[in-house]
Amino acid sequence: MPDLTEAVSEIADAMAREQRRGTVASYIPELAKVDLDQFGITVSTLDGDICCAGDADVPFSIQSVSKVFTLTLALGSIGDALWHRVGREPSGNSFNSIVQLEHEKGLPRNPFINAGALVVSDVVLAGHPPRVAIGSILRFIRWLADDEDIAIDETVARSEAATGFRNMALAAYMKSFGNLVHPVEMTLGVYVHQCAVAMTCRQLATAGHFLADGGGRSSTGHRVVSPERARRINALMLTCGHYDGSGDFAFRVGLPGKSGVGGGILAIVPGRASVAVWSPGLNQHGNSLLGTLALERLAKAMGWSVFGP
Amino acid sequence: MPDLTEAVSEIADAMAREQRRGTVASYIPELAKVDLDQFGITVSTLDGDICCAGDADVPFSIQSVSKVFTLTLALGSIGDALWHRVGREPSGNSFNSIVQLEHEKGLPRNPFINAGALVVSDVVLAGHPPRVAIGSILRFIRWLADDEDIAIDETVARSEAATGFRNMALAAYMKSFGNLVHPVEMTLGVYVHQCAVAMTCRQLATAGHFLADGGGRSSTGHRVVSPERARRINALMLTCGHYDGSGDFAFRVGLPGKSGVGGGILAIVPGRASVAVWSPGLNQHGNSLLGTLALERLAKAMGWSVFGP
Amino acid sequence: MPDLTEAVSEIADAMAREQRRGTVASYIPELAKVDLDQFGITVSTLDGDICCAGDADVPFSIQSVSKVFTLTLALGSIGDALWHRVGREPSGNSFNSIVQLEHEKGLPRNPFINAGALVVSDVVLAGHPPRVAIGSILRFIRWLADDEDIAIDETVARSEAATGFRNMALAAYMKSFGNLVHPVEMTLGVYVHQCAVAMTCRQLATAGHFLADGGGRSSTGHRVVSPERARRINALMLTCGHYDGSGDFAFRVGLPGKSGVGGGILAIVPGRASVAVWSPGLNQHGNSLLGTLALERLAKAMGWSVFGP
Amino acid sequence: MPDLTEAVSEIADAMAREQRRGTVASYIPELAKVDLDQFGITVSTLDGDICCAGDADVPFSIQSVSKVFTLTLALGSIGDALWHRVGREPSGNSFNSIVQLEHEKGLPRNPFINAGALVVSDVVLAGHPPRVAIGSILRFIRWLADDEDIAIDETVARSEAATGFRNMALAAYMKSFGNLVHPVEMTLGVYVHQCAVAMTCRQLATAGHFLADGGGRSSTGHRVVSPERARRINALMLTCGHYDGSGDFAFRVGLPGKSGVGGGILAIVPGRASVAVWSPGLNQHGNSLLGTLALERLAKAMGWSVFGP
Repeated sequence: MPDLTEAVSEIADAMAREQRRGTVASYIPELAKVDLDQFGITVSTLDGDICCAGDADVPFSIQSVSKVFTLTLALGSIGDALWHRVGREPSGNSFNSIVQLEHEKGLPRNPFINAGALVVSDVVLAGHPPRVAIGSILRFIRWLADDEDIAIDETVARSEAATGFRNMALAAYMKSFGNLVHPVEMTLGVYVHQCAVAMTCRQLATAGHFLADGGGRSSTGHRVVSPERARRINALMLTCGHYDGSGDFAFRVGLPGKSGVGGGILAIVPGRASVAVWSPGLNQHGNSLLGTLALERLAKAMGWSVFGP
Repeated sequence: MPDLTEAVSEIADAMAREQRRGTVASYIPELAKVDLDQFGITVSTLDGDICCAGDADVPFSIQSVSKVFTLTLALGSIGDALWHRVGREPSGNSFNSIVQLEHEKGLPRNPFINAGALVVSDVVLAGHPPRVAIGSILRFIRWLADDEDIAIDETVARSEAATGFRNMALAAYMKSFGNLVHPVEMTLGVYVHQCAVAMTCRQLATAGHFLADGGGRSSTGHRVVSPERARRINALMLTCGHYDGSGDFAFRVGLPGKSGVGGGILAIVPGRASVAVWSPGLNQHGNSLLGTLALERLAKAMGWSVFGP
Repeated sequence: MPDLTEAVSEIADAMAREQRRGTVASYIPELAKVDLDQFGITVSTLDGDICCAGDADVPFSIQSVSKVFTLTLALGSIGDALWHRVGREPSGNSFNSIVQLEHEKGLPRNPFINAGALVVSDVVLAGHPPRVAIGSILRFIRWLADDEDIAIDETVARSEAATGFRNMALAAYMKSFGNLVHPVEMTLGVYVHQCAVAMTCRQLATAGHFLADGGGRSSTGHRVVSPERARRINALMLTCGHYDGSGDFAFRVGLPGKSGVGGGILAIVPGRASVAVWSPGLNQHGNSLLGTLALERLAKAMGWSVFGP
Repeated sequence: MPDLTEAVSEIADAMAREQRRGTVASYIPELAKVDLDQFGITVSTLDGDICCAGDADVPFSIQSVSKVFTLTLALGSIGDALWHRVGREPSGNSFNSIVQLEHEKGLPRNPFINAGALVVSDVVLAGHPPRVAIGSILRFIRWLADDEDIAIDETVARSEAATGFRNMALAAYMKSFGNLVHPVEMTLGVYVHQCAVAMTCRQLATAGHFLADGGGRSSTGHRVVSPERARRINALMLTCGHYDGSGDFAFRVGLPGKSGVGGGILAIVPGRASVAVWSPGLNQHGNSLLGTLALERLAKAMGWSVFGP
């Protein structure tokens, strides 16, 4: 097996030299201000090694990567009943498409497109005030990452709330089909706050470690989810984690992953390692351009793929 | 590790007792005549074991499972240039939808939906008469399966050709965008013949073995494709191999697979085994009902999943 | 020319005997309570005759018929600049479809589908508080109908506001494309109040009279709109006034018309008369079943059609 | 009433000076060769006057204008049973869209989009060989125009047949739903020949005269269709005659009309006149740019509109 530390370091160097940087998300004003030159990577192996390079300790807005954690919470709360309200299929449309919702009567295709994540937020709300739900999401992420310093960036949350009319449309639309229990603004409130969680690559790789480790949380011996549920979340990440670029990510990288419009990606090497990369420039599908390139190189260098030797 | 022979035998027994049988494909008249009670399974491991149960030696129409083999041929012929004519994303629509083609200007989403497979057939044609292309497809499958007895069921081919107006529409539509080189009827001719190849589970598991074995063909030491290409074909099978039920198959079974409307499924356990199951009754997505159940049980019994321990 | 009074009276009798009654709109709870047995008709000719029959003096919720009046107001306010924000084409979709908005970037197809009418309400708002805009709409309708007793049914407005998540989705969606100036809830407020205006057939036929009379308001000699604008509003009513049943209405009735989900229809015989019919039971397109039948009979009896003798 | 001869002459002069010319249809190679500078107009009044100007005697390919004549033939043949196979609603999509067919199970929206016209051709075929159907279409048009010299331009027909894969797709698609009786190539054969009829403005205005005259054919006293059918064909022309620009044509011109991609438009002033204009340059909806402008001017100059004085 190749040396992981060396591979990670070489990738960070290559990314620093890369001419293509992508473009920052423009529709959330606060995210549009982030410096394109940044790149961070952390690999957390099942052997207990943590390799970092680049801006691995710079916090960024995890945005849609948070959907992995809220999905885990919602499954913990209501189990497979979740699947009556959200599907498990790739959408074939962009992350914020409403067309599919009209054709399929308010049932979003999967929990990782915006509409599906709004349903998940609605499940996490569970009749509590939004700040309670937001609090429990934040506590869960802190516990997974074993780091009490993780916080929500209120400026980003407000920035998204003020401009998130497309999400309001998705939520109102699902509510018109009865697929949202709480008032539209409460569900949106939870959603924008979960997206505004700020984490470093180091924290994110640690938080996602349980998905590589059969649902366990090695540091303490606690179990987060069952091995079967960990596999299933990984399956959803592979088929749906990169919106309309999921097939391409599976083809090129070959690992389950979930990207966020803040430029972060959490990738899972089942039985081996969790990986967090971050670089704010996005490709045409809204996924981190350098993050994807870095994961492709890492998978190749280490021979990591779920699809074969 | 649990005993494979025992697991396979138990699954075949359970499937024989299963009350739900699904429904046969009705749109190809010849397939509608097949007896719903049949079920076969073959597992071919990298250790060289071949476990069969049920109707593993009854030939059936492989239909869309053939798309794995023609894709392999087309990639061998023109390599990554194929991806200029067909995408790599799940479609989010049924196998024969034409809506996506209009929105995306004649470029099919992936090589496993009908439109994409027609483009692949067009590539395999390569200026030759259809019978030459059909001959080379059949020779390739025989070589992979190491069995010269595999043949095309002309009755099925004729049955499909006489009623395949939806495929004619897809082909003509792509031709109007310049994404088909040969005349519509020639491409359709190749397509219906590749779908009409009849194989047993034993033959199919053997033919697909190279995808579990990093592209190699263990019996002779020949290499069919590179390890990277084998991984990539597996990735496509996982994200797109079951049409609009691909996400659900990944979620429940956790293995790359390609189904056919004849009731066959080829599934790959990378680094471990290839599996062929067959039972003609289909579920609502057009995939074998018992075949899917059997693969779900087998994956669980053997701890086989690409998504973790 | 046949006798109008007789024709109107015969039609009212026939509608009273008609077995088919349609179904009331169920999505606005307050409207679902209305008695299906009611039918009213008023014809107001350019000669100054007013023929009434049936429940012509029973007030009903005009709902989308109000869109004719707010369109007239909005055109009076900003003129043809309106057409930069809303199209003039039939939609080919149901009245509350959001699919078209995604494909056409937040620009609704015409001012009579819900999305288009929301844009019109947004124009009428013009920076004022909603109650001011609602007040000016109500005053305009009272002036047209020459009747100060016309009022808004607040129970209906509240009923619609509480359940109108689909309209909230449309409004939020357009706002995400910048095609709504005011806050979503303000525009929705104006919209649900204009829809909740209650009028009798007599009042509605009088209010719509200017469209039959080249834009004039004969009773007082005032001009409401220019003859060209009257023709153009009639054209929009003919091509778009009955949602996805507009073509059928033009085919069968042959007159410009605008229907509302409360069961009312305003139809225009250019140069001859304005007609208001009302019966709360709807057909499959959401248009009054008996209202449409009555107009078809009236047009036939009187030889009224814009499409020829 | 203004002087018609003068109005027609002024319009022809204005069109000759007009800088905007539009673009010729490029997808039928033979049509792409036509000179953009041409413009012709003929008005045939119910008083028996025929006013011509410009290139009124130059034959052009009538293309989709032919759909008015084949619809008339098909209605004469099977009457209202036609409406079980084709709808009467505007499509909300471009003339050759296949999306709507998938959503509505092979039932085209109206007889003037390509899919609907293919069904009409299929009805006219009626079990006969294509040349017989083509012959009866040509005879009908010659009889309507009272001119035996009208002919089919075989070069255009061949040009369209060789490249008409989109129409082949539409036909095959409908056949897969059972909405085409004859073989795809036979229906296509009739369709491309009816589109390739070449006529002058003078011939076209004469042929369409019956629609202005309540279904009669004044020159001989023969009745072509009943007054009701004439009105209904006019209604279809108004709501569906200009594809996705029908609403705009009704708004601006205010008359029933049917356009063809060859640059011709037949417009009807019910009870007054039939008008044929021709200029090969098309606007963004595929309708003659100058033809539409000329009709707008003519309608304004003469005060001709179905929507009011």
